[in-house]
Amino acid sequence: MARLVLKFGGTSVADIARIRNVARHVKREVDAGHDVAVVVSAMAGKTNELVEWCREAAMAHDAREYDAVVASGEIVTAGLLAIVLQDEGVQARSWQGWQVPILCDNAHGAARIQAIDAEEIVRRFKERKEVAVITGFQGIHRETGRITTLGRGGSDTSAVAVAAALKADRCDIYTDVDGVYTTDPRVVPRARRLDRVAFEEMLEMASLGAKVLQVRSVELAMLHKVKTFVRSSFENPADPSPGTLICDEEDILEKQVVTGIAFSTDEAQLTLRRVADKPGVAAAIFVPLAEANINVDMIIQVVSDDTTTTDITFTVPTGDFDRAKGILEKARGAIGYASLTGATDVVKISAIGVGMRSHAGVAARAFKALAQKGINIRAITTSEIKFSVLIDAAYTELAVRTLHSLYGLDRA
Amino acid sequence: MARLVLKFGGTSVADIARIRNVARHVKREVDAGHDVAVVVSAMAGKTNELVEWCREAAMAHDAREYDAVVASGEIVTAGLLAIVLQDEGVQARSWQGWQVPILCDNAHGAARIQAIDAEEIVRRFKERKEVAVITGFQGIHRETGRITTLGRGGSDTSAVAVAAALKADRCDIYTDVDGVYTTDPRVVPRARRLDRVAFEEMLEMASLGAKVLQVRSVELAMLHKVKTFVRSSFENPADPSPGTLICDEEDILEKQVVTGIAFSTDEAQLTLRRVADKPGVAAAIFVPLAEANINVDMIIQVVSDDTTTTDITFTVPTGDFDRAKGILEKARGAIGYASLTGATDVVKISAIGVGMRSHAGVAARAFKALAQKGINIRAITTSEIKFSVLIDAAYTELAVRTLHSLYGLDRA
Repeated sequence: MARLVLKFGGTSVADIARIRNVARHVKREVDAGHDVAVVVSAMAGKTNELVEWCREAAMAHDAREYDAVVASGEIVTAGLLAIVLQDEGVQARSWQGWQVPILCDNAHGAARIQAIDAEEIVRRFKERKEVAVITGFQGIHRETGRITTLGRGGSDTSAVAVAAALKADRCDIYTDVDGVYTTDPRVVPRARRLDRVAFEEMLEMASLGAKVLQVRSVELAMLHKVKTFVRSSFENPADPSPGTLICDEEDILEKQVVTGIAFSTDEAQLTLRRVADKPGVAAAIFVPLAEANINVDMIIQVVSDDTTTTDITFTVPTGDFDRAKGILEKARGAIGYASLTGATDVVKISAIGVGMRSHAGVAARAFKALAQKGINIRAITTSEIKFSVLIDAAYTELAVRTLHSLYGLDRA
Repeated sequence: MARLVLKFGGTSVADIARIRNVARHVKREVDAGHDVAVVVSAMAGKTNELVEWCREAAMAHDAREYDAVVASGEIVTAGLLAIVLQDEGVQARSWQGWQVPILCDNAHGAARIQAIDAEEIVRRFKERKEVAVITGFQGIHRETGRITTLGRGGSDTSAVAVAAALKADRCDIYTDVDGVYTTDPRVVPRARRLDRVAFEEMLEMASLGAKVLQVRSVELAMLHKVKTFVRSSFENPADPSPGTLICDEEDILEKQVVTGIAFSTDEAQLTLRRVADKPGVAAAIFVPLAEANINVDMIIQVVSDDTTTTDITFTVPTGDFDRAKGILEKARGAIGYASLTGATDVVKISAIGVGMRSHAGVAARAFKALAQKGINIRAITTSEIKFSVLIDAAYTELAVRTLHSLYGLDRA
């Protein structure tokens, strides 16, 4: 008998028929003798509808009220799943975040879970094998008693946090794909499902554009060593495939050098030409951007043609492009540059693998392969277990496929 | 400076544009210097959608889970109204029933409010003139910590209960009509809006088919002497009409004998012929119905043709007709009757007025007037301030108009 947390996303609970299907997955685990907590998202589309209403209500809306409104979607799903489970003969009750309670800080809209008191849920596991159906995405701030939400995709984080609090043997993230792939199968038809992926790798993949899991949930799983599976809710509940296990590096026997290729189109490039090469100039550029809450990612600095100045290129999220440009134009006097250019038709391609730690020259092979295809690299960043290149968006598919083949990830 | 409770129903908050209109009503009262608590329903149609999902989920669903699901609609409206109010420069925050808290018993789906702790709301009135936007229709059961709902139309009751807890000077129930009418204006175009109506009269009207207010809310207003207005949210917020005041009988100067004509089509008639006229026969009929939770309303008993037996006629809600018939057929041996007949195409017409207490012969005039129009009366019940007649549904409009004219209620 194990203790499990099962998480179902919006497409898995999009209507009553699908909720009934979810109940079959839950019942399978209950029938196997397990204690089960379920974390649910809102029905697909519902959270967007609520967000849209808040926007209509006021351009700048109180984050506390926004949280109260958008957290209502999960309440509906949790209650409905409890009803369906009871109808299938499974003991169940719903728990709203504040009922558990799931205690958060008061960073409304992007709150962090601080503590979960799972005592009553455990008591009910023991007393009557009752399934706990918990609203994802939300908690409560203890001091103010207000509802807080964790940000989009936050239900993954709820699930992992509940699993940590329950000391669960496993956390199954059910979604509309059957696991984590070497890359997006829509781009590379020969992408393979991974049986296992290391926490560190998954963290990089999520950060670098793979949309399987919320970054924060992977951090939390890594921190608390929660064995987390990504698996599909759309398979036959009676005969499910195991999906992808996210686990410690040591638990992966056959390590690849590169495990996956991620890409993100949410990148825009800005280049300042002929910046005076003097101390303090980087601060003059990046401090105002940081103060405006703009996330600067890749930064490269090269000596300009005239050798007394430098060219500085960096990337920001596409949505911040115009704002960043405006800030830099305003700061032109303080920075001192000859020209400011930018591009939004760029993409960041990343290769991730814990094997890179012990293998030299992994990135160099990629640069060569991309050059052979005539793909120009605008910027590069590397870290211990990944490297990223910024290229023209037009070459996205070509570059991803090239790297996917290069590192031996293609399905036979 | 007064303390006010404003309640807005589903059609008044059906979309963001209407919520913005509601905010203007609220702002008018705030600008006049009043402390304001607002009670809101779910957007029109939302509660029905949630109820339908619960039904789809399971025919027999756990009332606690049903309550959690259907209470979510008001959460959305309360948050959105708070956002719009803030956008209009009005200090506001939303309160979910459990946050106030509004404490209820655990009769899920038909809970009664036991206590409201309005201390924090009052503190915020005093400290910062903050408007409290409260979810109607719901509260929390203290012992279990579960959400409870008050039954359909329960937001009226929430509003009156909040007004009582706040010792409010006034409770304004905003709806899609501009007050309480002498009868339904769709049936009688010459129906008049009443300036005032006594609590007792309103209670009878609500019980007898007028759909303006939930019966329970009127009981509560009467008990706590809450000055309650029924008024329209669809008028110009800058120049609203006062609506109808529901108040103590003593506060009504010009008393009519009859104040209003109500009618209810939710009636079905059952007649047992040639029932043995012996002790215990009434119990044999009505105890099984009571045990099946069927509400028996009008009962008349007349001697049959053969003078040794009696005929018994009574009414039940239309929805219980088939069930009641089945129960009586099963109990035929125990009761002993010659035949069982029924009719669902009947209507109950009622005349209500506190003036009846001091005027004799009020009902008799109606019987005569209806007879003159050739309308056959199937059953009659009377009480201190009302009388009801059961007639063929086909004569509904004719009967209502006849009584409306008879008692001088027609608009000039």
